[in-house]
Amino acid sequence: MTGPPPPVADVRRAVRRALSGLPAGSLVLVACSGGADSLALAGATAFAAPRMGLRAGGVTVDHGLQPGSAERAERTAGALRGLGLDPVAAVGVEVGRSGGPEAAARTARYAALDARADRLGAAAVLLGHTRDDQAETVLLGLARGSGARSLAGMAPRSGRYLRPLLGLGRDRVRAACAAMGLEHWEDPHNADPAYARARVRHDALPALERVLGPGVAEALARTAGLLRDDADALDDWAERAAEPAALGPGRLDAGVLAGLPRAVRTRVLRRAALDAGAPAGALNAGHVAELERLVTEWRGQAHVDLPGGLRGRREDGAVLIGG
Amino acid sequence: MTGPPPPVADVRRAVRRALSGLPAGSLVLVACSGGADSLALAGATAFAAPRMGLRAGGVTVDHGLQPGSAERAERTAGALRGLGLDPVAAVGVEVGRSGGPEAAARTARYAALDARADRLGAAAVLLGHTRDDQAETVLLGLARGSGARSLAGMAPRSGRYLRPLLGLGRDRVRAACAAMGLEHWEDPHNADPAYARARVRHDALPALERVLGPGVAEALARTAGLLRDDADALDDWAERAAEPAALGPGRLDAGVLAGLPRAVRTRVLRRAALDAGAPAGALNAGHVAELERLVTEWRGQAHVDLPGGLRGRREDGAVLIGG
Repeated sequence: MTGPPPPVADVRRAVRRALSGLPAGSLVLVACSGGADSLALAGATAFAAPRMGLRAGGVTVDHGLQPGSAERAERTAGALRGLGLDPVAAVGVEVGRSGGPEAAARTARYAALDARADRLGAAAVLLGHTRDDQAETVLLGLARGSGARSLAGMAPRSGRYLRPLLGLGRDRVRAACAAMGLEHWEDPHNADPAYARARVRHDALPALERVLGPGVAEALARTAGLLRDDADALDDWAERAAEPAALGPGRLDAGVLAGLPRAVRTRVLRRAALDAGAPAGALNAGHVAELERLVTEWRGQAHVDLPGGLRGRREDGAVLIGG
Repeated sequence: MTGPPPPVADVRRAVRRALSGLPAGSLVLVACSGGADSLALAGATAFAAPRMGLRAGGVTVDHGLQPGSAERAERTAGALRGLGLDPVAAVGVEVGRSGGPEAAARTARYAALDARADRLGAAAVLLGHTRDDQAETVLLGLARGSGARSLAGMAPRSGRYLRPLLGLGRDRVRAACAAMGLEHWEDPHNADPAYARARVRHDALPALERVLGPGVAEALARTAGLLRDDADALDDWAERAAEPAALGPGRLDAGVLAGLPRAVRTRVLRRAALDAGAPAGALNAGHVAELERLVTEWRGQAHVDLPGGLRGRREDGAVLIGG
């Protein structure tokens, strides 16, 4: 008896590892765009889940952004049913405009997946992101320049969302899709230079590979994992450090802050600004650096302007953040 | 009275900030290749140091790798003397082969700078690296994929070495050099695609700028600073955590390690492997990840092979690293 083709075995193994530990009888949902990556994920889950005592369903989201998208979503749903997934649904969403086209589509998609998972009581939702998607995410985060968290990419596990394929290259996953005989769809957005991710995929990453050698995507994905661990540990430390530094709401002891390593001090200050109402999307490393100067380079400077109409200032040995 | 041109003012301000705090009468040495960046640094130091009660000298290193390099070094030394630096020396070195041409040249250069600084009792050696050099260093570190330390770039201050210009863009520094009327040299190595740094400068960074927008170099340099802070804080934590985990030389308590955040645990394990004799250049994140599995995914697996002929294994609730 011969086993499955190696790429298929790889994808199945990745799915089994991600699903291990779920209670028997649980329902897992595969989120599938109809693209090669998530179709391979669906095929592997349809195979592996029942053998682990789990039920596997599928969901595909129709973003309504391209002509014929509803028909395509129905075809994808048909393919998922053909794999034996059950229940399967094609869910239509309305994409807003907030944060740009990619962010708006993502927001609508996750809302639909959450609603579906809630309705069915699903224990997990599986997403088909690969190591190459992770590398692209890290490069997009580099452009923000806001530290470890923005370079930490996507989590292998975040609440009920699982990304079993983050350790596998896109080529490998596509080979698995082909070996399973599944007919996939190529999203034209993936090649549309209007999208930053498409530009990273087709221009920036190949340029980095030319310059730094093959294996850049792997190095970026590995970096993401390491920096995610770092960010988790430092966030924990900052949470513990915040308590002895707190003098009251929006009031921190500058002497206590001065005794912390800078990586922890800046996280405590960032957290305090968020707690005071600064919008997370607008609060950047520059703002936090200015707040930090109230602690480490105090020379009687004026207040620091923060997003959300807030101000940071120093008074009586304390850093105050408020309206 | 008009002030200096803005780029010159920027470079002088950066130098003053870097030199502040040095004891009066100290000697600082500018390391100058004859290129625009380090010539601008030399010009600004020649201006600023005496006004701060400091003496400023210069040193240029002849790597002997190009025809006419000795004459060029002498011309650079002459330019430094012309700026009023004193003492000035052109120092010849022999570049070995270890670690590739760039690493070998760097090793020889720093040995020569160290020797010169020791001989003269210099309090500081100033290097002309700019924000763009820092961005290039971060991208080169990305290819290694070994975490925060490899992305932390160059330190603004490392022992007696100071890099006053790390916060300024190369264009700004070159403009300062031109405004000072200094004639600089273009090192052909900077454009030679045989060198990884030249490829990063002329191919990878421009591609990233096209894709992610202008400001990528600045974002990379900011990232470097943030990750340097992170790495410093986590190294400190790991040092403190190592003591309660130590059961003896090369012997760590797996239960204590299991209770640490992964970012700290992996640093304790890496440190233990280095202490046991693993060569730093060969010990990578993959080795450390395998060691970590002895703690977090212990299923009776065999030993882990480490560089330097070492092995890691688990025995009686302890991780052992040894020959």
